Amino acid sequence: MRRGGILHAELSAALARLGHTDRVVVADCGLPIPAGPQVVDLAFSFGVPTFAQVLDGLLAEIVVESAVVAAEVDASNPDCAAVLADRLPLASRVSHEELKALLADAKLVVRTGEASPYANVVLRCGVPF
Amino acid sequence: MRRGGILHAELSAALARLGHTDRVVVADCGLPIPAGPQVVDLAFSFGVPTFAQVLDGLLAEIVVESAVVAAEVDASNPDCAAVLADRLPLASRVSHEELKALLADAKLVVRTGEASPYANVVLRCGVPF
Amino acid sequence: MRRGGILHAELSAALARLGHTDRVVVADCGLPIPAGPQVVDLAFSFGVPTFAQVLDGLLAEIVVESAVVAAEVDASNPDCAAVLADRLPLASRVSHEELKALLADAKLVVRTGEASPYANVVLRCGVPF
Amino acid sequence: MRRGGILHAELSAALARLGHTDRVVVADCGLPIPAGPQVVDLAFSFGVPTFAQVLDGLLAEIVVESAVVAAEVDASNPDCAAVLADRLPLASRVSHEELKALLADAKLVVRTGEASPYANVVLRCGVPF
Amino acid sequence: MRRGGILHAELSAALARLGHTDRVVVADCGLPIPAGPQVVDLAFSFGVPTFAQVLDGLLAEIVVESAVVAAEVDASNPDCAAVLADRLPLASRVSHEELKALLADAKLVVRTGEASPYANVVLRCGVPF
Amino acid sequence: MRRGGILHAELSAALARLGHTDRVVVADCGLPIPAGPQVVDLAFSFGVPTFAQVLDGLLAEIVVESAVVAAEVDASNPDCAAVLADRLPLASRVSHEELKALLADAKLVVRTGEASPYANVVLRCGVPF
Amino acid sequence: MRRGGILHAELSAALARLGHTDRVVVADCGLPIPAGPQVVDLAFSFGVPTFAQVLDGLLAEIVVESAVVAAEVDASNPDCAAVLADRLPLASRVSHEELKALLADAKLVVRTGEASPYANVVLRCGVPF
Amino acid sequence: MRRGGILHAELSAALARLGHTDRVVVADCGLPIPAGPQVVDLAFSFGVPTFAQVLDGLLAEIVVESAVVAAEVDASNPDCAAVLADRLPLASRVSHEELKALLADAKLVVRTGEASPYANVVLRCGVPF
Amino acid sequence: MRRGGILHAELSAALARLGHTDRVVVADCGLPIPAGPQVVDLAFSFGVPTFAQVLDGLLAEIVVESAVVAAEVDASNPDCAAVLADRLPLASRVSHEELKALLADAKLVVRTGEASPYANVVLRCGVPF
Amino acid sequence: MRRGGILHAELSAALARLGHTDRVVVADCGLPIPAGPQVVDLAFSFGVPTFAQVLDGLLAEIVVESAVVAAEVDASNPDCAAVLADRLPLASRVSHEELKALLADAKLVVRTGEASPYANVVLRCGVPF
Repeated sequence: MRRGGILHAELSAALARLGHTDRVVVADCGLPIPAGPQVVDLAFSFGVPTFAQVLDGLLAEIVVESAVVAAEVDASNPDCAAVLADRLPLASRVSHEELKALLADAKLVVRTGEASPYANVVLRCGVPF
Repeated sequence: MRRGGILHAELSAALARLGHTDRVVVADCGLPIPAGPQVVDLAFSFGVPTFAQVLDGLLAEIVVESAVVAAEVDASNPDCAAVLADRLPLASRVSHEELKALLADAKLVVRTGEASPYANVVLRCGVPF
Repeated sequence: MRRGGILHAELSAALARLGHTDRVVVADCGLPIPAGPQVVDLAFSFGVPTFAQVLDGLLAEIVVESAVVAAEVDASNPDCAAVLADRLPLASRVSHEELKALLADAKLVVRTGEASPYANVVLRCGVPF
Repeated sequence: MRRGGILHAELSAALARLGHTDRVVVADCGLPIPAGPQVVDLAFSFGVPTFAQVLDGLLAEIVVESAVVAAEVDASNPDCAAVLADRLPLASRVSHEELKALLADAKLVVRTGEASPYANVVLRCGVPF
Repeated sequence: MRRGGILHAELSAALARLGHTDRVVVADCGLPIPAGPQVVDLAFSFGVPTFAQVLDGLLAEIVVESAVVAAEVDASNPDCAAVLADRLPLASRVSHEELKALLADAKLVVRTGEASPYANVVLRCGVPF
Repeated sequence: MRRGGILHAELSAALARLGHTDRVVVADCGLPIPAGPQVVDLAFSFGVPTFAQVLDGLLAEIVVESAVVAAEVDASNPDCAAVLADRLPLASRVSHEELKALLADAKLVVRTGEASPYANVVLRCGVPF
Repeated sequence: MRRGGILHAELSAALARLGHTDRVVVADCGLPIPAGPQVVDLAFSFGVPTFAQVLDGLLAEIVVESAVVAAEVDASNPDCAAVLADRLPLASRVSHEELKALLADAKLVVRTGEASPYANVVLRCGVPF
Repeated sequence: MRRGGILHAELSAALARLGHTDRVVVADCGLPIPAGPQVVDLAFSFGVPTFAQVLDGLLAEIVVESAVVAAEVDASNPDCAAVLADRLPLASRVSHEELKALLADAKLVVRTGEASPYANVVLRCGVPF
Repeated sequence: MRRGGILHAELSAALARLGHTDRVVVADCGLPIPAGPQVVDLAFSFGVPTFAQVLDGLLAEIVVESAVVAAEVDASNPDCAAVLADRLPLASRVSHEELKALLADAKLVVRTGEASPYANVVLRCGVPF
Repeated sequence: MRRGGILHAELSAALARLGHTDRVVVADCGLPIPAGPQVVDLAFSFGVPTFAQVLDGLLAEIVVESAVVAAEVDASNPDCAAVLADRLPLASRVSHEELKALLADAKLVVRTGEASPYANVVLRCGVPF
């Protein structure tokens, strides 16, 4: 079997298909997802897996050149904001409504079991060359 | 959205289809899975989600009348054995080879991210009436 | 098998996929359904199952933050209006034509066997966190 | 829309396909269903719809020349036995294990929400000419 | 098997799905059918089955609240016009070009083997309650 | 459109695929059809289309080198026997049970609306060269 | 097998589906084909089969009420122009660019192995009644 | 577009998949084809394309290490026998019945429009290294 | 098996479908690919296969009448620019942003393992006749 | 996009699905592949990509506990034998015929462009825990 990294078959394929500027969303379990992007459902139950677990696994596998989060996360979900500050200190803020408008153009949405508000991020892929 | 319980769409459907005596397997991420059973892939990375997380989520949702585990788990994976003793104290033991022979007749295999040896269980469904 | 709740496989999956603000319609058996939403067909025969049975089953499983019904229900179908007043006392009223215009944007339509006029409701999902 | 009778699209198609001697099973919600027959899932929740509701709907639509039930139903589920005595007084009895062995050769299984033991019947189709 | 009525599996399912105001077209074998509606092909050869046979079978099964035919049918196809006058005396007339423009919004087109001009009708479904 | 002959799209394709010795079944509407052969469903309602209509249409389109019917047809269905005597005077007789055993090896079953007993024939294809 | 005519299964089905005014294109092997029409690929190698072979086969099977070709065919491909003059003497001429603009609305494109310039025709179907 | 060779998309893919010892059948239009091999249908009408055209196109594209034909071809179809003698002088002979028994294990059957008896060959692929 | 040329099954089929003026893109492994074109994924790992390997294989198989590359390739990727100058000396230059805007209208994108910047080309197909 | 490793989407998914004792085959471009295993086609042209390139990429990604090669490789293909000796010094030898018999039970076959004899290996997966 694989030595490590992402073990999920459908997600592995989706990550392998990503190109420069494609957008990947890590979503809490309640985010409404429009038609358009491929959705990989990792949500088992509330908190399994967490937003941080999935974000960390993805950042280890893909190159990210920028990120966007909902401004509301800072006040409403300090735990999630701390995770974002640690992993994506340069992430820009938009309103939650604006963030949702970005979803239809994403290539991939990874749904986690995170059950806390505004725990979502839109990652924009870079290339390693 | 759902109030709680299992959030994974494909897994929810698979659980709703189970009948009396159907077998469900909770598997570590390295178990070889034969053709036959439906496979729901929850494995994200090593240890995400754990065997115990997924087992607990399933036991809360379905009626189980008996369970089978590999006898090797007791010596080789005491943490997993403790989880099993706590949730399924009456689980019977067979050899790991015998356990693998049961897989082809299972209705459903739920693959977790558990990365420890012999962390597998075959659950046999009961009915609540 | 499952301990209780929704037993229908396709419906279980559809409910697990719902997010905040997604719309779910509980429909009588004669509502014309536009292309767009996923349709789960529960209608067996006139009155089997009833609107109330299905509505109660869904409300037990999902978080609902608001609801819309046809204003015509109050005069034309007092039994159904009583069910709605009991379960969804704050449901807003629109004309039946306006209600039908909401259908194309719904995520899910659950078709019941209810054979009485205007027995339809559009539910807007909330989140439990 | 249809004037009456069976309203369920997939079930209507399945009934239209039946021929002489084909077998149709009306099943409680916990019957384990082997691979082979087409399965139409009508089970919404415990008791919705009931075994009697679905049986009556099917008998109104198809010609049945014989029926088989589990002998256990008489002692364990007198309500269901009464329904069977009323609608299918000539139904033959086999053991529940024998009944389950008949399932793989059935053409169609209609799963109800009935949540009481041994509420299953195997119907053998006749022709009206 | 079924006691009578419509025996065609795919057509049975299509009829069961119809709701109030949905449109069903009964078509001669040469009508050009746009993308959009579901098409059930009953045309075997010229005249098998006839327009009248299929129209009568459908009217026995579904509630129709209004109908539209091509005005050209009266002069060009008196046999078909007589059938229409008998079964749908209130059918309104539009030009053949206007009738064809209605097809894309139909839910279902049933293609017969009728080989005579303008033998087409657009039925609008009603409800029996 | 086509100048004549078979107008049914799926049936046209199935006939075009036939080779030497392949078997085609023309069936009444109640014949139980095993898994295996492709089934083209022409049955609209009892008697629409008839066995004779479909048989004549097929014989005009394909080369047939021999035919088999149920011996019971002669006594039980003289009208159908007369049709067979006229079109396939050399058809051999087997018991209805034997005829049904031939179905699983057929390439194609064409289901008619014929609602009279034993109105079935197994045609064996020849080649025109 | 079939007595003659078109032997290709997919093409037979496509021809059977055609109605009045539907367009069918017979194309050389290099014509760029837009999304939209069904494409039946008969091209084996350069010149196998020829444009004339396929055109003749189609004209024997379907009713054509008008045809359009590229004006360039007369000067650039006299052999093909002669075939067209013989079979479709009334075909109208448009520029090759205009002809290509007609392709997206065609119902069917039949791709031949013809390897000569401008060997394409758009046929408009008529009805035999 | 391609510079030459095989132009048929599905056939190109099938040829690219072939490995050492895989069998390819070139078939007349009346050969009965069992389930198992992929079938590429090139048959347009009687004699279009011919057996020789397709055989030559395939031999130019793939490595063949041996071939089998029906012994009956020599007496019954001298034209085809001459083609075989020219292109595959070492082809071995078996009875037509034995040849048909080889079909189920073939990887690919290419159906031509050839309408003459015993015009079939089973090619066994070699490798160019 | 094939004597040489392109061995990839899906790519062989895609090339066989190309017509005059259709566009084929040879892409480095990081190019973002919009919905629309068929994508053949040849990328195994960084540099396997190279842009030059795939470009050479395609040019040997298809007729190309013009090509477009990103102007940035000349300064940023001299190795790739040298390959392009050698194989496609007349390729026109547009900005990388303009090149990406051409992708949605391409018929086919062939993704290589090339991991160097701006190693992409849009080929426009010609015909050999 | 991904930081490195395997870039091929379908292959990434296939590798993520592997479990303990599952078999993966790295194959030259001419190996006949039986029905059963999933096949990922990487073969572009002779020698692109090579056996060594693909083997190295897989060994970096998955845990392998044993390997089997054809004994003939040592004498007939010393370059490939050297690659095998370097990467899989403990690989066991069986005859080429025996090796081919192992293919049907493999989970995955990765087809390379290698065009040299006996360049195949059957890898048996291990687990890293």
